[in-house]
Amino acid sequence: MRDTKYYQDLIETALKNYLPQGEYREKSLIDSMEYSLMCGGKRIRPLLTLMFCELCGEDAKIALPYACALEMIHTYSLIHDDLPCMDDDDYRRGKPSNHKVFGEDIATLSGDALQSLAFEIMLSESAVEAVSADRAVKAAYTLSKYCGALGMVGGQVIDIESEGKSAELEVLQEMDEKKTAALIKAGCEMGCIIGSADEKKIKAAREYAHCIGIAFQIMDDILDVTSTSEELGKPVGSDSDNEKSTYVSLLGIEKCKELVDELTDKAIKSLSVFDNDTQSLSDLALSLANRKN
Amino acid sequence: MRDTKYYQDLIETALKNYLPQGEYREKSLIDSMEYSLMCGGKRIRPLLTLMFCELCGEDAKIALPYACALEMIHTYSLIHDDLPCMDDDDYRRGKPSNHKVFGEDIATLSGDALQSLAFEIMLSESAVEAVSADRAVKAAYTLSKYCGALGMVGGQVIDIESEGKSAELEVLQEMDEKKTAALIKAGCEMGCIIGSADEKKIKAAREYAHCIGIAFQIMDDILDVTSTSEELGKPVGSDSDNEKSTYVSLLGIEKCKELVDELTDKAIKSLSVFDNDTQSLSDLALSLANRKN
Repeated sequence: MRDTKYYQDLIETALKNYLPQGEYREKSLIDSMEYSLMCGGKRIRPLLTLMFCELCGEDAKIALPYACALEMIHTYSLIHDDLPCMDDDDYRRGKPSNHKVFGEDIATLSGDALQSLAFEIMLSESAVEAVSADRAVKAAYTLSKYCGALGMVGGQVIDIESEGKSAELEVLQEMDEKKTAALIKAGCEMGCIIGSADEKKIKAAREYAHCIGIAFQIMDDILDVTSTSEELGKPVGSDSDNEKSTYVSLLGIEKCKELVDELTDKAIKSLSVFDNDTQSLSDLALSLANRKN
Repeated sequence: MRDTKYYQDLIETALKNYLPQGEYREKSLIDSMEYSLMCGGKRIRPLLTLMFCELCGEDAKIALPYACALEMIHTYSLIHDDLPCMDDDDYRRGKPSNHKVFGEDIATLSGDALQSLAFEIMLSESAVEAVSADRAVKAAYTLSKYCGALGMVGGQVIDIESEGKSAELEVLQEMDEKKTAALIKAGCEMGCIIGSADEKKIKAAREYAHCIGIAFQIMDDILDVTSTSEELGKPVGSDSDNEKSTYVSLLGIEKCKELVDELTDKAIKSLSVFDNDTQSLSDLALSLANRKN
């Protein structure tokens, strides 16, 4: 497997090309979609799709429409999350959030259009030709399930409804499974589906995704109390300011660090069912567990 | 072809069953989706999918996932259109709009989840098994294209951006083609695709959809000046109050009535390429042209 930079470059170029090209009357909409999509994020989710596809022995490039669709879903969710009627965030990754630049109406619509575009590119003739209609259907179905009412959107609802009250660990786990792990699962599973993996490998990819997803979320909670705002690039202590239950508030920081290590270990072990070299995916799990921001 | 009541009953039952069943933590979200989806609308778009599928010689029932997906897309667009940051409508079909009942956050998310669910049901194993992966991909792709940035959402953007200024006829036509005709086209074309129609028949269905879609919109403008608010079930004269350009303000009422008749006539003529009985579709075009609300 190549280094992550290779895949990230593929993703950046493809994302840009999937946006409508040319002159349209709805220019503000397309600008708004591009503003949030081409924001220089880490692209972890689409990266996983490409890496799992290649791990299964297929060329990562045929998984690009599915990887980019996933990033579009992730991006639309961030645009809508930042809206005043949701988390009301004026900034995202140090830049004004979408609605601060384009207005709430266009921001709402550009989120909507990014979701449609995600499905459009997964089901387009060229995408389907490269992978067969069967695999295209299975991959797009997987994403639709993980991003919907009982997946990512459901997680957001649970988050909104537990604001300002102390949540139980069970609720926190369900929320993070849906809000964070669901799209990571979608990424890993789609990579396997496009790579024609068997059910055993898809299950292993799901386990890997679950573990790094939850570890990622616990790390977020840890960093919110241990990091400085310079390191983190955003205000720290926001969880306790919002009286939000977190893994740290429920379990204590030592237990949380243990959990991150356990989950990371479990993620790496789950990769043993794959025949090819899984070093890059192990490294990715470790780098997420050891991150400083 | 059977009478429209038969198809409408199929649609109502299927829509209800496609919503998540059982007990979930995100109950408010599912209630909100159901509130707007099961609202007793006319179901014209999904009706067209079923009728065109049967016209092509297939059982209408196999087109139900595609018909219902289309209604979900239409419903999500109405929920988002009514939001305060968009048209800011407190009522929809005489009932409080979604965000007035569930809050803006849940309304935004239930629109998002309805769009995901639309794709989920079109790509589910049972839907695909009944029609083949090839047809499922083609139908779902068609819907994604018509509902996205250069389709329905684009039309909404053009509408927003032409508010308060007098638009040219060309802009009005592009807006209505996208905002209104696009989903009607999606409905007719998906019915043909699921019915295994050839390109000539799909093209005819698209022409029919274009004609009834634009005629529908012109009728809306006519009714806004000729109807009483009792007949219409909503305030009349809202277009001129909003200084909105309409077909009536640009062309005059007589020319508009002529156009509706011409378009309806053209819609009916386009059906001549189909071998089976097209009476129900002709009747539908006529009933839309002669409606009082």
